[in-house]
Amino acid sequence: MFEAAELGNEIDKVAYKKQEPLIRTRLLNAQQELAKSPYSVMVLIGGVEGAGKSETVNLLLSWLDGRGVEVHALGAPTDEERERPHYWRYWRIIPPRGKIGILFGSWYSDPLVDRVYERCDDTGLDRELHLITQFERMLANEGVVLVKLWMHLAKKVQKKRLEKLRDSPKTAWRIGPLTWKYFKKYDEFRRVSEMALRKTSLAFAPWHIIEAGDDRYRYLTSSTFLAEAIEAAMKRPKALPAPAAEGKKPPMPVPKAVNLIQSMDLSARLPDGVYEKRLIELDADLNRLTRKMVDAGGSMTLVFEGTDAAGKGGAIRRLTEPIDARIWQFMSVAAPTDEERAHPYLWRFWRQLPRRGHITIYDRSWYGRVLVERLEGFCTQEEWQRAFSEITQFEEQLTDFGTIVIKFWLTISPEEQLKRFKERETTPYKQYKLTAEDWRNREKWSGYIAAACDMIERTSTSNAPWVLVEANAKYWARIKIIKTVRDALKKSYG
Amino acid sequence: MFEAAELGNEIDKVAYKKQEPLIRTRLLNAQQELAKSPYSVMVLIGGVEGAGKSETVNLLLSWLDGRGVEVHALGAPTDEERERPHYWRYWRIIPPRGKIGILFGSWYSDPLVDRVYERCDDTGLDRELHLITQFERMLANEGVVLVKLWMHLAKKVQKKRLEKLRDSPKTAWRIGPLTWKYFKKYDEFRRVSEMALRKTSLAFAPWHIIEAGDDRYRYLTSSTFLAEAIEAAMKRPKALPAPAAEGKKPPMPVPKAVNLIQSMDLSARLPDGVYEKRLIELDADLNRLTRKMVDAGGSMTLVFEGTDAAGKGGAIRRLTEPIDARIWQFMSVAAPTDEERAHPYLWRFWRQLPRRGHITIYDRSWYGRVLVERLEGFCTQEEWQRAFSEITQFEEQLTDFGTIVIKFWLTISPEEQLKRFKERETTPYKQYKLTAEDWRNREKWSGYIAAACDMIERTSTSNAPWVLVEANAKYWARIKIIKTVRDALKKSYG
Repeated sequence: MFEAAELGNEIDKVAYKKQEPLIRTRLLNAQQELAKSPYSVMVLIGGVEGAGKSETVNLLLSWLDGRGVEVHALGAPTDEERERPHYWRYWRIIPPRGKIGILFGSWYSDPLVDRVYERCDDTGLDRELHLITQFERMLANEGVVLVKLWMHLAKKVQKKRLEKLRDSPKTAWRIGPLTWKYFKKYDEFRRVSEMALRKTSLAFAPWHIIEAGDDRYRYLTSSTFLAEAIEAAMKRPKALPAPAAEGKKPPMPVPKAVNLIQSMDLSARLPDGVYEKRLIELDADLNRLTRKMVDAGGSMTLVFEGTDAAGKGGAIRRLTEPIDARIWQFMSVAAPTDEERAHPYLWRFWRQLPRRGHITIYDRSWYGRVLVERLEGFCTQEEWQRAFSEITQFEEQLTDFGTIVIKFWLTISPEEQLKRFKERETTPYKQYKLTAEDWRNREKWSGYIAAACDMIERTSTSNAPWVLVEANAKYWARIKIIKTVRDALKKSYG
Repeated sequence: MFEAAELGNEIDKVAYKKQEPLIRTRLLNAQQELAKSPYSVMVLIGGVEGAGKSETVNLLLSWLDGRGVEVHALGAPTDEERERPHYWRYWRIIPPRGKIGILFGSWYSDPLVDRVYERCDDTGLDRELHLITQFERMLANEGVVLVKLWMHLAKKVQKKRLEKLRDSPKTAWRIGPLTWKYFKKYDEFRRVSEMALRKTSLAFAPWHIIEAGDDRYRYLTSSTFLAEAIEAAMKRPKALPAPAAEGKKPPMPVPKAVNLIQSMDLSARLPDGVYEKRLIELDADLNRLTRKMVDAGGSMTLVFEGTDAAGKGGAIRRLTEPIDARIWQFMSVAAPTDEERAHPYLWRFWRQLPRRGHITIYDRSWYGRVLVERLEGFCTQEEWQRAFSEITQFEEQLTDFGTIVIKFWLTISPEEQLKRFKERETTPYKQYKLTAEDWRNREKWSGYIAAACDMIERTSTSNAPWVLVEANAKYWARIKIIKTVRDALKKSYG
């Protein structure tokens, strides 16, 4: 596929002068449309050394309206980046809707270099390319337009350019020992890049190979690809994210007659006196094991979902009591801010992902998309349907990083819920928990059960399982939760 | 001042049981008021080892509505934190309006420990306390309620507690060699803390010393101080930030007859042919010196302000042309997002502060507060007046960190502006720069001049000077700017 970029394409000064104002106007118009749209753009600049990547970015910056562009040069990861799953560093630079982000170095750099230097084999590279494809598909679905530009030079041309750069005092600094080291591997780089580019040149995010030998040709081609990509996106309809109007609420799903949640034995309870005794042992373990986890640089993510008043808060309070307050963090999931709404759905969770050595406890979570957002029509059917796989991919990145992930679903009966609502009404420091929303949600009981069953079936994985908790009896529920957490910690750190 | 916290205060179980529901209700009510208010709360937990800080935080977390609280345990700074001015790590955890942040370790920790171990003298500590006072005053003015809790133990009591913690298998882990090392310095810590607390116990942010020997007393006292502080803030009137209504626009300031800007010689221009020649030399220097700066871990911040159409964009484009696109960053200052509006004014600039090794170029900047926001009534008079010192303190932190800070004010004449506006109307790729706002701003010309003169007089410091640029002749302006940047780099890295 690189042969087409070795033809000696050039543009002469006169032609360039004629085309420059045209493409600048076109770029600016595209950027203005983009600014008003629900799309954002990520430009990846890849390619061989000495192909003029930096100059091309400087040119794009000078032609675009600087107010809508940000440039990110990704070098070695910082320690804050190393202390989170690999893709965190890419999530944190996704531009908000309306903006353009330009990336030097991207999620392609490490896999390619690792393969060339045989730090991984073809299978390892394939796995990385698979992760890339998942990531890019998610971005594309969420309205991030990917413009992937690859600057190519034929071997002879590259050699000549590198020598020229080396011999001019103005550019000699660019040519370090690493440049020649890489150049020696030209053929291998070419083979690996060609394979990777072919496998990742997808309909929603194609690669554009640019013959980079001639500055003017490279400038015009790069800016034209960028303008075209934005223009094409502007023609695709995409609504700004907004809750469905009242009349347009989706129909409530109906649970299967026999389902996971309905099959739970809500009469489960502990014999008298067992609760306090078990807690003494569990608390001691939790205190010890969480410290061991921190020392080992481990992490844990606990998700709590369930019916209203199922006792999530109380269970979390009891669970965390013996744990050092510096170790655990509580994350509450409220309505997204405007910055969060301007990014892909999972961005708000990625941005708050704590560093290694923490237990993060979510009272409600990313599963909101397939529960309340699905039922209330806050997202489209297409959005919540693909959320199942986006979420499992997200959790897989956590567990691949060594994070223990457990998700608890707490169920109570409608009668028990009614009793608890009434109790909340009369206890002063519990009143704040009860809102009109809670009463309204009771009417959607079976819809919630149906959505929850879908969710549990589709997102309970061996690495990040759902644990169903019978919660009519609070003590039973708490011991089950605390014991599950203890056992998981013990398995890894006991 | 610690004697009052060595009296052996205790609360018995019965009294505690009676008071617990009262203070919980009070805390929750206060928190609910806070959530609707323009205030946020930062709780600093300081004090001696073994005083039960972690348990106190766990208790507060279990009593408060977890959805409005975040806990931050500040250990050693990460490399991302070390690569920015010291206070960056505190700025990044300021809670948004309506929320409570609880801090283990704070801006007090390092100065106190450094003084005890004689890594600084009293003068050094005083300087740090002065920075703290500036920071806390800014926070208080911006609606961040500081609740500073100091857990105190008398020497004998502390020794007994530490021994008890050490001898119980459940808590022995907490007592490391550092604990006893610190304990040996009890008297010195006490002396230094007492001095520091006295100097930083200010009307807007007082310290509360809590006798920490008895758990129940400590719990009730800490939660009461927190509730009281929130209740007191709720009684102070503070409007949510909002632009002044049209009728309430502030009067336009009038410039002095003889002023800095009016005295500029706008006829300044370069002789023919000089521009291109000077650029060749300057470009080579810039390319070389910026790379040296990066290698030395230096940074540079350039601010561009000036009248509309004064040529800021063109000057920035020409300045950056010879600089590697990985080194410089362009920051454009648009309307703040809702997250930004929920934080102190300068937060939006702190959060985007790049790591070492970058040149950051601001096309408009934090000076917006004393220019457009002042003139349009987007902030109160009190706000823009204190902004002068807040801004110089901010810039001082940059320059203390080794960042070169230069601020350019570009001036053109009203006639030249009119000419350029008309040119923009007719050049397709310049039209986007011209808005109705620009025409309206022309009518406020003298108001802008007056505000700009105030600004330059009050914020031009030797470490972060304003450079006035006569910009009627574009080439003259560009060379003056580029030469100023080159000279500053040469002084530090030549």
